[in-house]
Amino acid sequence: MRNPEQLAVVGVTGYTGFELARILLRHPAVKSPVFYVRDTQNKNCLAELFPQLRGVGEAPLRSLSLSEIIASNAGTAFLATPHEVSVGLAPALLEAGMRVVDLSGAFRFRSANTFATWYKLPTPHADWLSKAIYGLPELYAGEIASSRLIANPGCYATSVILALRPLAEAGLIAGGSSVVCDCKSGASGAGKDPRRDLHFVEVDENFKVYNLFSHRHTPEILEHTGLPEDRVIFSTHLLPLARGILSTIYVTLSAVHSGNEIEAIFRKFYAGRSMVRIWPAGSLPELQHVAHTNFCDIGFCLDSSGKRLIVVSCLDNLGKGAAGQAVQNFNLMLGIEERTGLQ
Amino acid sequence: MRNPEQLAVVGVTGYTGFELARILLRHPAVKSPVFYVRDTQNKNCLAELFPQLRGVGEAPLRSLSLSEIIASNAGTAFLATPHEVSVGLAPALLEAGMRVVDLSGAFRFRSANTFATWYKLPTPHADWLSKAIYGLPELYAGEIASSRLIANPGCYATSVILALRPLAEAGLIAGGSSVVCDCKSGASGAGKDPRRDLHFVEVDENFKVYNLFSHRHTPEILEHTGLPEDRVIFSTHLLPLARGILSTIYVTLSAVHSGNEIEAIFRKFYAGRSMVRIWPAGSLPELQHVAHTNFCDIGFCLDSSGKRLIVVSCLDNLGKGAAGQAVQNFNLMLGIEERTGLQ
Amino acid sequence: MRNPEQLAVVGVTGYTGFELARILLRHPAVKSPVFYVRDTQNKNCLAELFPQLRGVGEAPLRSLSLSEIIASNAGTAFLATPHEVSVGLAPALLEAGMRVVDLSGAFRFRSANTFATWYKLPTPHADWLSKAIYGLPELYAGEIASSRLIANPGCYATSVILALRPLAEAGLIAGGSSVVCDCKSGASGAGKDPRRDLHFVEVDENFKVYNLFSHRHTPEILEHTGLPEDRVIFSTHLLPLARGILSTIYVTLSAVHSGNEIEAIFRKFYAGRSMVRIWPAGSLPELQHVAHTNFCDIGFCLDSSGKRLIVVSCLDNLGKGAAGQAVQNFNLMLGIEERTGLQ
Amino acid sequence: MRNPEQLAVVGVTGYTGFELARILLRHPAVKSPVFYVRDTQNKNCLAELFPQLRGVGEAPLRSLSLSEIIASNAGTAFLATPHEVSVGLAPALLEAGMRVVDLSGAFRFRSANTFATWYKLPTPHADWLSKAIYGLPELYAGEIASSRLIANPGCYATSVILALRPLAEAGLIAGGSSVVCDCKSGASGAGKDPRRDLHFVEVDENFKVYNLFSHRHTPEILEHTGLPEDRVIFSTHLLPLARGILSTIYVTLSAVHSGNEIEAIFRKFYAGRSMVRIWPAGSLPELQHVAHTNFCDIGFCLDSSGKRLIVVSCLDNLGKGAAGQAVQNFNLMLGIEERTGLQ
Repeated sequence: MRNPEQLAVVGVTGYTGFELARILLRHPAVKSPVFYVRDTQNKNCLAELFPQLRGVGEAPLRSLSLSEIIASNAGTAFLATPHEVSVGLAPALLEAGMRVVDLSGAFRFRSANTFATWYKLPTPHADWLSKAIYGLPELYAGEIASSRLIANPGCYATSVILALRPLAEAGLIAGGSSVVCDCKSGASGAGKDPRRDLHFVEVDENFKVYNLFSHRHTPEILEHTGLPEDRVIFSTHLLPLARGILSTIYVTLSAVHSGNEIEAIFRKFYAGRSMVRIWPAGSLPELQHVAHTNFCDIGFCLDSSGKRLIVVSCLDNLGKGAAGQAVQNFNLMLGIEERTGLQ
Repeated sequence: MRNPEQLAVVGVTGYTGFELARILLRHPAVKSPVFYVRDTQNKNCLAELFPQLRGVGEAPLRSLSLSEIIASNAGTAFLATPHEVSVGLAPALLEAGMRVVDLSGAFRFRSANTFATWYKLPTPHADWLSKAIYGLPELYAGEIASSRLIANPGCYATSVILALRPLAEAGLIAGGSSVVCDCKSGASGAGKDPRRDLHFVEVDENFKVYNLFSHRHTPEILEHTGLPEDRVIFSTHLLPLARGILSTIYVTLSAVHSGNEIEAIFRKFYAGRSMVRIWPAGSLPELQHVAHTNFCDIGFCLDSSGKRLIVVSCLDNLGKGAAGQAVQNFNLMLGIEERTGLQ
Repeated sequence: MRNPEQLAVVGVTGYTGFELARILLRHPAVKSPVFYVRDTQNKNCLAELFPQLRGVGEAPLRSLSLSEIIASNAGTAFLATPHEVSVGLAPALLEAGMRVVDLSGAFRFRSANTFATWYKLPTPHADWLSKAIYGLPELYAGEIASSRLIANPGCYATSVILALRPLAEAGLIAGGSSVVCDCKSGASGAGKDPRRDLHFVEVDENFKVYNLFSHRHTPEILEHTGLPEDRVIFSTHLLPLARGILSTIYVTLSAVHSGNEIEAIFRKFYAGRSMVRIWPAGSLPELQHVAHTNFCDIGFCLDSSGKRLIVVSCLDNLGKGAAGQAVQNFNLMLGIEERTGLQ
Repeated sequence: MRNPEQLAVVGVTGYTGFELARILLRHPAVKSPVFYVRDTQNKNCLAELFPQLRGVGEAPLRSLSLSEIIASNAGTAFLATPHEVSVGLAPALLEAGMRVVDLSGAFRFRSANTFATWYKLPTPHADWLSKAIYGLPELYAGEIASSRLIANPGCYATSVILALRPLAEAGLIAGGSSVVCDCKSGASGAGKDPRRDLHFVEVDENFKVYNLFSHRHTPEILEHTGLPEDRVIFSTHLLPLARGILSTIYVTLSAVHSGNEIEAIFRKFYAGRSMVRIWPAGSLPELQHVAHTNFCDIGFCLDSSGKRLIVVSCLDNLGKGAAGQAVQNFNLMLGIEERTGLQ
């Protein structure tokens, strides 16, 4: 019998997977999670593989085996696997009756074409794409609660969409104007694999732009803000710090507004959503305010003309940008308070 | 008799002044520099005040005294003093027959009004303002060579103007379009005075926006790019590193261009100017490439439409953004190679 | 009526006080904490003063007033105040029937002389000194549970004492030999007040020794390891990071031992104490393993002679080194599981 | 005809080799250096491979070829190659009439056994070992000047030997006492190859011990301080910064001394040696003081008994700890001022 609170957590060796493990280990509604990795190095328990989890992570560790996961009672699977692995794994688990929260990009797009274009991989499971829900709880809580397949959003995309969607829905973005999204992320967002450009000495006391006009989070931003491609410029930068994304977003307003009006629009949009915090007009969030949390903090500054708006959106790329948001989605699927285990 | 190679260097306790001292101590054309600080703490030599200069900085240290500087033979004074000090000091030294390179904002604007508006201080020496030359050698080398008062540019302004001026002069910026300048600086740019928000723990693993729509370098950017205020958005961010400014600048082009055309425009503009390095189309500079140098590195990326351009401009805020540029200006005033002492 | 679970938390503007607030805000046994600071800046709630606590810290904020605290129902007071404030505050609160956990150095020594010698302040409350318990739960859990005044240990002292006490009690330290304790701490341990030497640029990419032969944690180490002053050398260094202490401790053993024997001695000493984690012979803890936790991790390495031992002890200076340990003490006073609220 | 000022510089892709290239490119006595790397990636000039050297490093780049180097006129070769490469390369170049400065560990020991024991490699060229001079200019300037093969010392070894040798020669170290050398290094010392434990996220905000009782610099320290193995404890730690080594060294003195006496001993030993700077009694060097320099700064603190001494030794591991020292050796071989090109 599948129990939704009983978990299979797949892929915990990367930074996202490890953060996910840390959150789930102290989540009050989680029952007997089993952790799966490609190579257990002959360890039987999570704390043997990650000694810093001793006293906290005495949970079973297994070699990744689809048949073993299916044979277990687990009702929900978290996949912190690369998209090329998730593409095959998720459908098999769904067909075996499990719910799946996938943290990769594999199921984020309704159109198989979009995935193929940006990820350079064929995605044969077009039927599952249509059933997958984009797991941004502040926008799609209802659909998430009744879905069996959640595509957890990209970290940059979460930061930008949460900042722009309220403005777009309220018709505040001047028609024809470009929106510039200048985004900066800490190095844990680049993954854990050893790479020359992620060596400490290459990142420390450095700052750089990367993936201009080609970042894979672009189509998510377009799809969920409703803005056309030629009106969004999205850039990504690497910060010399471990965790966090700060996006500085430049918007031309369709009409003159006051700071209070802008604040009211954001507050109304996120009323009742505890994980997005709107900063009062005149104050701005910083990365430290959200590190190690599941919050997305949004502040803004309006120029004296009342038409040029800068929105600042901050989150922890491993928290609200990945593992925390995955758990928030899981909570919604379970029908429990969305903050559970996230404070 | 005043000797232009004989120097009075005023204000070497801040980060900019200290960097200036370091460069001048090994500058081959500098003769017997004397260093002045507000409080010598009873030390007679620079290396006594800064023990890390032992073996390098055995140069005389004096209490700041206008009459003593005037009584010396020094032909050139560098002022690394706050603008409220420079406002009074520079004219007195000029009238005594010295040349002055002022690193503050006091003499950067032709209009006394601009200074008063942005710096909240009256500036009674309007006559000197008209004689001061904005010390950006790549734009004004001729005027600098024949001037006696150089207003050394702001660090952010240098970074942005060098990136935009070639495009503006070539008429490449679409009429009516906004130019977004998203700039990020290391913490040495904020000065050395102890401040709660510059405590290590507040900056480390943090990133934030500051001074939106109110940064004092704004009027320099407008004046030297020729763009009107309502078409430039300039934002500043604090990076968790010591040195460097990277500006990401978003430009809508007036017509479709190729990367090679853009590169050619930059190369032509900076032909013969060794301190600005243009990166080949498709490659981009990083902060580490310019740290501890006097280079400003400029790269760019054009989207597939050929109309949206992102320019990346990097420099060391203490080098090309302050002390290095001051020495480059000094070299031009002396009539020697502008790189002297800067490599 | 005083209720021990009802709290007055005094001094939450420093790093330690803020960490304490964060822990207590989610502590399941804490009832209606009230936070006191010297200057509320006209704010009524913690989250107004610290916007990053919005949604988490909607607890009352008050100006520090002894009479108001006494008039409240609070049964326990946490003092994250400087020792010169705690010296007066703690006795007044104790006499009003409250329990006190003091995080300063004011009550850490049985002898008023020791305090006066190291802290350069008279300590008139010698009677309270004799009643204060040194709040190191792994050594004095019983006394802590029945005490009304806890002197929370110094961060360095906690790190060193936990590493040495098991060896000292087991008679393993060679008679007459010196023990070298080379300790390194992150910058949050130096306090939050703006200081020139704690400016980001002074700490970043730097490392230095400080307070050689004069650090105030020295007498705590001597008193609780039982080693005489001339046999302990204790040095402190400033790391370019925010949180954590790693102590490298060099011990000459009184006889040849194997790694397994050393490990067994540590394990036996800390049996049943969940907040000290002993690393298996041949592995060593790192700072990241304990950051943001209340663990003290201890590992060691023995040379091939079996007589030279290096012990490595790691903790978070704001966690087990200060606020976390204060809460652990509070839990023991309440008679609840010592880990409550600390995971 | 071989010209000693004409150079072959082999292996410039690592951090040490790159620093060496940077120094040599502006060295006034160096004539037409040619740079050799394993893989030129079809580039013909150094600045093409390292774009940050544009305008500075327009020097020829070649694929490493022994015959090509031999066929050139180069009189001196710098080898910034791994020891297993240097073992073969150096003898071939020496036999072809060149001088060699080898930065690896291959020729640092007089005994082939020592090399084989610590480096786990056979070293067949025992005849060359006897001709190699350990390139620590402050100890062996005379031998260096007349040698054709210089074994450039290890970075940690340089830091420790320079601190201990004056004390050892003066008979100040108490007979039978242990000397503890607690050393901390920045991450550039660990090399540039991508490694999981050198990923930015693993080093940032972390600090750890490594290679206890097994570091390869141990035998250098023993050989050049003259202390027996059982009296030296040498530990190494990884700092979250790029450049620099700080060693904290604990010495028990053979007799009571004053700070002035200790300072005098150091000053006398290093009289006339400009690259070692002795700090006045009561002051201590920090890593920032030596970063990007070729200095080794030495300070100390004596306890009130006058018998316990802590020596603090700082250098830049890429400067005096590697590339800078290699150039200092080269200068001595050329017979020019040892500081040439190093300021």
